[in-house]
Amino acid sequence: MPSRTVEHASTDDRGGASPESLRGSARLAPGGPEAGRSARKRRAIMEAATTLFLRDGYRYTSMDQVAAEAAVSKQTVYKQFADKEQLFRDIVLGVTDNAEAIITDMTSVLRTKGVASHAELQAVLTDLARRYIDGVLQPRVLALRRLIIAEAERFPDLARAYFEKAPARALEVIASALQGYIERGLLAADDPGLAATQFAYLALAIPQDRAQFFPDERPSPAERDRLASEAVRIFLAAYAPRRAADGGR
Amino acid sequence: MPSRTVEHASTDDRGGASPESLRGSARLAPGGPEAGRSARKRRAIMEAATTLFLRDGYRYTSMDQVAAEAAVSKQTVYKQFADKEQLFRDIVLGVTDNAEAIITDMTSVLRTKGVASHAELQAVLTDLARRYIDGVLQPRVLALRRLIIAEAERFPDLARAYFEKAPARALEVIASALQGYIERGLLAADDPGLAATQFAYLALAIPQDRAQFFPDERPSPAERDRLASEAVRIFLAAYAPRRAADGGR
Repeated sequence: MPSRTVEHASTDDRGGASPESLRGSARLAPGGPEAGRSARKRRAIMEAATTLFLRDGYRYTSMDQVAAEAAVSKQTVYKQFADKEQLFRDIVLGVTDNAEAIITDMTSVLRTKGVASHAELQAVLTDLARRYIDGVLQPRVLALRRLIIAEAERFPDLARAYFEKAPARALEVIASALQGYIERGLLAADDPGLAATQFAYLALAIPQDRAQFFPDERPSPAERDRLASEAVRIFLAAYAPRRAADGGR
Repeated sequence: MPSRTVEHASTDDRGGASPESLRGSARLAPGGPEAGRSARKRRAIMEAATTLFLRDGYRYTSMDQVAAEAAVSKQTVYKQFADKEQLFRDIVLGVTDNAEAIITDMTSVLRTKGVASHAELQAVLTDLARRYIDGVLQPRVLALRRLIIAEAERFPDLARAYFEKAPARALEVIASALQGYIERGLLAADDPGLAATQFAYLALAIPQDRAQFFPDERPSPAERDRLASEAVRIFLAAYAPRRAADGGR
């Protein structure tokens, strides 16, 4: 029974890193057909390694296996990555590059919409909470998160780099937006950083924790919407100025 | 560098399962010196296996290694556990037995204290939040949680059993206590289960998530107290009846 699960744990049906999550490094390659081929091979190697690291653990994955899974020669692997550790580092740091793009997309709703009332703030935060839940529940985001947590004792510096560039960076962007709402009198919070963290975990913690234990389970759209709106309800009960919260009801 | 980390990942300095967490099964052994020896060996095997599963993964741990780590013969291992899968199952299910004891201790504050005012409820919930944070941040609880999450795709039924008997069971007990406060007019919540979940994650999610990425990091007592009191502040802002919350300020 265990082997069945392992054999099925491929990128496709287990939601390992998709090409999108690895494009950060590919962008660095200059133009030309030779460079394009090299970038494609690099992506294939990183994808294969991510699949194997997640399935077998970093320790039990060899560069030979990575080459076979990526359908390239071992020489090609070593031309791109000095060793297995470098390969792992490039995967994690490539993901953190991409996290910034995801964060920018999620938090764009915070900046572009004009927000002048409690009801508008509620709508904007609910939209953010929904995007945030959808973002962290993407199979490749969950898979990479699990890989980094699994290897956190072996690579504490990479766990820290990921944490600071992905979840902590998202919190910074949200805190900065909340600061804007505080200045316009729409929120009352002494510590925007803590408020942002509470907001994030109110929205994310329930589905993210379940997804760790039940990798194939996702909330339905209706459940996702309820998680988002309940998170915002609680957040605003705590952080809206008293009069605004009453007016919004 | 990787091997150094691995070599140091022993039960003692990495916070693997301690004997306390494995006592559930030992209790089943009847008295007598022979039975006592057998129970001790059983505990030693479960402890050794937990250490190895966490360090190397379930897949790459052999019964031979378990026997060597536990300093018993391979025959002794097989006398106690039919195979590696049975050993893993007994570890996880032994932990869930113990979770009930931890939950009972944590939530005892909810039942024993007479709570008649908003200020008293606030004190009780803050006490609960502190105990809850301390409970989930115990090294052996975190270590077992990581093991179960790491093997969730291989053993989905065990991940479910753990989730239902440990975190979900804690939420049930809290929801039941909240129901009591709702009936006495100290809280206003339509869905005590959701309120309990929000309470739990408000208190736990921040330190628990950090502990996943930074296994050796714990909040200081002052940070822990702030997390607890902020969680209760937000929870009561959302769930205290309006008048009670005003009176409590």
